[in-house]
Amino acid sequence: MQGILAVYRVRSDARSIEDRARAIAVEQSVEMPVSAIDDQFVLSEIVGRVQTIEEIQVGLFEVRIALSLASVGRDAGQLMNVLFGNTSLHEDVILHDIELSSELVDLFQGPRHGLDGLRSRVGAGHRALTCSTLKPQGLTPVRLAELAGRFALGGIDYIKDDHSLADQPYAPFAHRVEAVTAALKKSRPAGQASTHYVPSLSGDLDCMRDQLAIAANAGIDTVLIAPVLAGYSNFHRLVKENPSFAFVAHPTMAGAARVAPPLLFGKLLRVFGADAVVFPNYGGRFGYSVETCKELASTALKDDWGLRACVPVPAGGMTPQRVPELLDFYGKSVMLLIGGGLLVARDRLVQETAAFVTAVREFHRGRDDD
Amino acid sequence: MQGILAVYRVRSDARSIEDRARAIAVEQSVEMPVSAIDDQFVLSEIVGRVQTIEEIQVGLFEVRIALSLASVGRDAGQLMNVLFGNTSLHEDVILHDIELSSELVDLFQGPRHGLDGLRSRVGAGHRALTCSTLKPQGLTPVRLAELAGRFALGGIDYIKDDHSLADQPYAPFAHRVEAVTAALKKSRPAGQASTHYVPSLSGDLDCMRDQLAIAANAGIDTVLIAPVLAGYSNFHRLVKENPSFAFVAHPTMAGAARVAPPLLFGKLLRVFGADAVVFPNYGGRFGYSVETCKELASTALKDDWGLRACVPVPAGGMTPQRVPELLDFYGKSVMLLIGGGLLVARDRLVQETAAFVTAVREFHRGRDDD
Repeated sequence: MQGILAVYRVRSDARSIEDRARAIAVEQSVEMPVSAIDDQFVLSEIVGRVQTIEEIQVGLFEVRIALSLASVGRDAGQLMNVLFGNTSLHEDVILHDIELSSELVDLFQGPRHGLDGLRSRVGAGHRALTCSTLKPQGLTPVRLAELAGRFALGGIDYIKDDHSLADQPYAPFAHRVEAVTAALKKSRPAGQASTHYVPSLSGDLDCMRDQLAIAANAGIDTVLIAPVLAGYSNFHRLVKENPSFAFVAHPTMAGAARVAPPLLFGKLLRVFGADAVVFPNYGGRFGYSVETCKELASTALKDDWGLRACVPVPAGGMTPQRVPELLDFYGKSVMLLIGGGLLVARDRLVQETAAFVTAVREFHRGRDDD
Repeated sequence: MQGILAVYRVRSDARSIEDRARAIAVEQSVEMPVSAIDDQFVLSEIVGRVQTIEEIQVGLFEVRIALSLASVGRDAGQLMNVLFGNTSLHEDVILHDIELSSELVDLFQGPRHGLDGLRSRVGAGHRALTCSTLKPQGLTPVRLAELAGRFALGGIDYIKDDHSLADQPYAPFAHRVEAVTAALKKSRPAGQASTHYVPSLSGDLDCMRDQLAIAANAGIDTVLIAPVLAGYSNFHRLVKENPSFAFVAHPTMAGAARVAPPLLFGKLLRVFGADAVVFPNYGGRFGYSVETCKELASTALKDDWGLRACVPVPAGGMTPQRVPELLDFYGKSVMLLIGGGLLVARDRLVQETAAFVTAVREFHRGRDDD
């Protein structure tokens, strides 16, 4: 069997774990009693196989299962279905990891731009990237554009929409894009590389295509997308259809799936084509641990699979004061995203943004810059 | 504010719960410090508001929050984003319930066919419906069609694809539909209402549209879809675009425990247009409790919101022997789905299917039949 190696973590007593492991292998492949199968192709090529079971803590087991690559076809949603579909309904199992084989990499091909592309778009050399967010939802396009202009005056690299900005009547996508791009043109400091606006896609596949067309017409080359909500297949289709766009993936609704964050953000979204992945930073208002963040970032950047590096974008309750700590922790292959932590500056937004940008640039000065 | 009332269950100590509740209201609406907002529309119409906090067990609180309906636009994915997007990343919060307001019902409109439609398609009168599954994946279309023919000879109402059947090279969607529909035509017992084939949609929105066109050409009027994988917006779009099709929703990737199953299956998928919802039955190989199944089924059928009834389809490790127990429990407004539990009969598949069908019909004989 040409396989996908999937790693699950299962809470179980030691007596039951072999049965549980076999049950997962069956559930994620043929989903019926193997004794009732007489087809030789199915038995040799499709039925999942437990490879190893290891107790990693008392009552917690790591189970490695080989699943059929043929089951996946060429579809990102079907890969998720094969890896975790029905088993996601078991509260005591998480999908912990997969082996990113060359076959999977060939199928989905990963980021089209990645870290190098996102740096070169804004002339960032080898330094860390800076990002902020247009919010709150409810503001008019004119007010969002004012904010964007002030972030740009502060010299920020990327301005993304908040993921709550969809196509609401108070700020429709098209009006927002028009107003924000006009504001950015006006406020671009002479001689500086341009701040890039990253509008948020929403709705069904056709809606997102319409939004990409609007963005392309406005000269935009980077967008935000929520792959869990969009559907993995649709996300991957947009990546394939729009090779000149970079895609920043947002984690909204990712929590409900119980897939280990380093796997979901660092491998799966990356292989499907995310050029950058936003995730909740440790010590902010979400519960990801220091270890989870470290592993997520290193997985997203890892050079092992012939994939472009996917930029880790820690976010969520960050402040400009944390810049040195965060760059010490993540290194320079990162995009720092500070949203609310800048917006609280209100009248001093330009200055606070400039201080954030300067802190990032200063951090790198005098250090090894290759 | 024209609101959506969302109910969360939060694990917290009593001292922190007010802050946690406010933080959720902010996270799911403006996602920034409210003190930094000066826009009156945003403050009065967009910022989420904690309505009540109630301790329902020691350390477990039910928090009711009003969120802005305007935030949703007309998009199913955005509704999920507003209800639970970033908060899904907190492990100690579940989305427990929402109030299904007339505004939400008007936006999405629910099932186009529902229980009455699925019964009339197969001439079932007022009885419970029967269903089985084509599997395992890996079989050729010819072998899947043989199985379908035997289920039909046994008199079953619906035959759905296993949700693992996508568009794999060993049984492409188009070939499967052609072979199965041909087999059903041949094996239809004279004078009986026809068994309906329910093929499984997969892939991105365009792939699913192509599959629906193939199905329609073959005279099929009911399909299986996995809304969590497809993306809620795409699911809802297909419902709107294909008013003559009935949609059976499959729970793959729905996760355990983070969105309460009665809410996800009984309200959200229903309002987005699911005519039937497959869910893991109690006492099978999944962990849903008796209470969860009862509440899920009664919510899906509830007559309160001007929505057609959505058929509960308990499944997962069921056997023909459990028919009386299940019909006692669920009543007759149900579709019983037995897959592997019939396929283990192998050479006696027609007889076992007939016994299942007969058990369902017999159960109703002599009982109140309105």
